[in-house]
Amino acid sequence: MNERVVEVAVRKVHGAGGASAMDALAVEEPLEMRLEHLDGGRRVQRAVAVTMRTPGDDFDLVAGFLFAEGIVRDADAIAGIRHTGDTAGDGEFRSSVVVTLADGADVDFSPLARMGFVSSSCGVCGKTSIDQIRARLPTRRRDSGGMLDAAVVHALPATLRAAQAVFERTGGLHAAALFDRAGTLLLFREDVGRHNAVDKIVGASLRANALPLDDALLFLSGRASFELVQKAAMASIPIVAAVGAPSSLAVELARETNVTLLGFVRDGRFNVYTAPERVREAAS
Amino acid sequence: MNERVVEVAVRKVHGAGGASAMDALAVEEPLEMRLEHLDGGRRVQRAVAVTMRTPGDDFDLVAGFLFAEGIVRDADAIAGIRHTGDTAGDGEFRSSVVVTLADGADVDFSPLARMGFVSSSCGVCGKTSIDQIRARLPTRRRDSGGMLDAAVVHALPATLRAAQAVFERTGGLHAAALFDRAGTLLLFREDVGRHNAVDKIVGASLRANALPLDDALLFLSGRASFELVQKAAMASIPIVAAVGAPSSLAVELARETNVTLLGFVRDGRFNVYTAPERVREAAS
Repeated sequence: MNERVVEVAVRKVHGAGGASAMDALAVEEPLEMRLEHLDGGRRVQRAVAVTMRTPGDDFDLVAGFLFAEGIVRDADAIAGIRHTGDTAGDGEFRSSVVVTLADGADVDFSPLARMGFVSSSCGVCGKTSIDQIRARLPTRRRDSGGMLDAAVVHALPATLRAAQAVFERTGGLHAAALFDRAGTLLLFREDVGRHNAVDKIVGASLRANALPLDDALLFLSGRASFELVQKAAMASIPIVAAVGAPSSLAVELARETNVTLLGFVRDGRFNVYTAPERVREAAS
Repeated sequence: MNERVVEVAVRKVHGAGGASAMDALAVEEPLEMRLEHLDGGRRVQRAVAVTMRTPGDDFDLVAGFLFAEGIVRDADAIAGIRHTGDTAGDGEFRSSVVVTLADGADVDFSPLARMGFVSSSCGVCGKTSIDQIRARLPTRRRDSGGMLDAAVVHALPATLRAAQAVFERTGGLHAAALFDRAGTLLLFREDVGRHNAVDKIVGASLRANALPLDDALLFLSGRASFELVQKAAMASIPIVAAVGAPSSLAVELARETNVTLLGFVRDGRFNVYTAPERVREAAS
């Protein structure tokens, strides 16, 4: 059983004074992802990615990565997920996850073709083309979630902080959370890598057969980069809100995929970057 | 000429009110890195990586990436660096950088062997083994820089903020800065990707023939992950200080490579995680 937090001895310096103390660190460890499938009647395994991640919710992380990368398209494609020990005797990976694909499943190996080993901490790894990414993204959505009230947005940070209480003490974990449009917290995941936190959300939803997430809002504890909006769009999430700033390409992608992107959500304020028609400022 | 900041029209919501306004965004754009070299008498190009980065200091970024990944070992290996336009007519990359390797240069292509396309935003991409990474890192250093006074550490955030003034308004850029042990700012770089900011620092130093950085301190505006400590160790930087939290693996690697790692450097406080012998708490 991996731990998500470790205690280490540190020297805490305050002004010109110092004292020995213990400090809690967010655990960061490599995870190897492998696919197992039939190939010409023979069962083969192939390594897909190595990611630095915080242990916990590993199956969600791997399932979410495979979905967000366009390799598997539904939960049925995954026949099983299991942990294995160290790889092939080299003592390298502390943890490895093997995903067994369902025989005859609708799986697209082409995103893997040029991947080699990649890290799920970066959404563009293995992608030869930004246009390729865009082509895979759904741009029309059912979107029956109704309007999002500003008051609901203002309340998101406090709800996230309450959920983060356990791990907040490390100061080292990114959080991602799913909310409905009434502001109810549906799902919450953390990781040292912000992309992993989102993969965990998407994977948990996939495994619960909850995709597409047409009515959900994804809330991020940090900044919103291209890759995070991409992953949200793959899961058909129509609203992404971030405590921090979005990048230019995140805004561009949100516009193209009709995702409502909110940034700087804190202290009773936020900015609406795209698709403002989903947001109701005053509940007049 | 690429811009690092773009203005976009947003809706700014405050409480239940809203107003249209302009907002500054940090630019995030793909950059393709290519190597050009002799192969059996023929000049060939190979794609190395695609990274999402903030434009500016592209040559530093690419040179630093190649050095930090262990592909080139000194500035002499690089005969030239140039920008090119879009790739092969597919209109995909807005920007591409080609590094021409010196004929007969000491270049190690093996880190590329399993890379395919990777993003420099993640330091573990393309690495089949964490032990491989560790094996490449220098662990002994000259380290003639003398003691680091706590007062110098306390002053780092204010100096960084002053240097960030221009781009701070986007709220979306990570900064990395080199200081000497008297607290003088030597070099400053920013990027939407924290790994890119460090690659830019390492690359600028490589191109100025300033490696190894035995006497320097690397200051980071965010958290300290494994990859950032790895890049610092590759450049022989003995002290890494971060405004945010370190991860468990960052602390582990710092200990193994004899790097002094400071975290939570803010508000007149900091934590010393490893190699405290370089830090003088009171200038008694």
